[in-house]
Amino acid sequence: MKVNVYPAVPALPAEQLAGFTPVAVDTLRATSTIVTAMQSGARAVVPMLEPEEALAAARALTAGTFVLGGERGGVKIPGFDLGNSPAEYTAAAVAGKLVLFTTTNGTRVIRRAQPLGPVYILSFLNVGAVAAALWRAGADVAVACAGTGDQFSLEDIACAGALVDGLAALTAQPDMNDLAWAARAIYQGHQEHLTELLQTARHGQKLMRLGLQADLALCARQDIIPVVPVCRDGQITLA
Amino acid sequence: MKVNVYPAVPALPAEQLAGFTPVAVDTLRATSTIVTAMQSGARAVVPMLEPEEALAAARALTAGTFVLGGERGGVKIPGFDLGNSPAEYTAAAVAGKLVLFTTTNGTRVIRRAQPLGPVYILSFLNVGAVAAALWRAGADVAVACAGTGDQFSLEDIACAGALVDGLAALTAQPDMNDLAWAARAIYQGHQEHLTELLQTARHGQKLMRLGLQADLALCARQDIIPVVPVCRDGQITLA
Repeated sequence: MKVNVYPAVPALPAEQLAGFTPVAVDTLRATSTIVTAMQSGARAVVPMLEPEEALAAARALTAGTFVLGGERGGVKIPGFDLGNSPAEYTAAAVAGKLVLFTTTNGTRVIRRAQPLGPVYILSFLNVGAVAAALWRAGADVAVACAGTGDQFSLEDIACAGALVDGLAALTAQPDMNDLAWAARAIYQGHQEHLTELLQTARHGQKLMRLGLQADLALCARQDIIPVVPVCRDGQITLA
Repeated sequence: MKVNVYPAVPALPAEQLAGFTPVAVDTLRATSTIVTAMQSGARAVVPMLEPEEALAAARALTAGTFVLGGERGGVKIPGFDLGNSPAEYTAAAVAGKLVLFTTTNGTRVIRRAQPLGPVYILSFLNVGAVAAALWRAGADVAVACAGTGDQFSLEDIACAGALVDGLAALTAQPDMNDLAWAARAIYQGHQEHLTELLQTARHGQKLMRLGLQADLALCARQDIIPVVPVCRDGQITLA
């Protein structure tokens, strides 16, 4: 099994990855929030690039069947129901509903990975479940990190490293690209201190400045939600 | 002092880095070879993008005053005097001469960093000398890794991490971007086993398949050449 990790959206060489199963990760916070929403019983999450796209989609839906969620600059978008904190995506808020969802980096990486095939949604919360699902699928794996503003982000690399480490426990000798190897080393060096690692990351520091430090601890909880959301045909549902 | 590391040539956001001192690294093997050539007394190294460009420049020079050096696919270019192994760049081969030099990734990253200002040439061989020179200069630092085929390469990140580690020893609390932090962690975790780390890197494995394993050990020797080559106006000389 080949396991490749790519540091940010523009670095994903989608045209070279035919046959790879794509995995998208935006640890702080989009994919952690999507995983939480699906665990809370959302019918589906629809990743959208722009708030206007989400608002336009909402106009075609019946009130009460959906929520609008997401952020710009880390904070809830005006007119939206929910922001981008996993804590907001309770069963009371989203069970049975469609979540129209747009974030700065997270929804973009899912869209970018989509041409490769159904996109697995990864966070620390569900990394063990995703590793097991990928191992059962048996295909090569391409992990697309959202990054921040097109740049390498520590929290996504560490989470990708947790997945590589999980796959390495399941398959003897995965064939890792250099960043997969490095990501695993970063994860192994810090797996006992994931919250502190997220606090070290620049995007973690930005969230702390916005008063969102509680979200870092929420997103650093490994393997507490055993679901595998997958994005197919533009909708994220459970595999 | 800000210290930012960028994983590959296309990821260098040169337009956002006004005031940063650029550093270029292509550990395997271009910058290791340039450092060795300067230590061996080369008058200057001229990085060129294409073999044709180097051959054209050579036609304007007096025989005996220059050598043509570089690689494509890891091997010496037809018609060139030297390849891209540090071992070839002895005083007998290059002392007093201009080295017209072209490699697949290394010369490209130097050219890409050039608009930021004089480019410091980094390898494990001279990392301590480069750290000291940057610390004396006092400016923010942007490390541009060559990468391999536009992708993150472990050997360059590890070498960038050695520089970050050296700067962190000289300046209290450098302000690192996420990749600088991760690079330092990779370096710190493997600094006692740099040859093995280069053997783990995909480009290191390619060089081993070409029978060039001796070059990995040559390029993994930390702080044995205390020179600081700098590229100004298209020519690399000693700072």
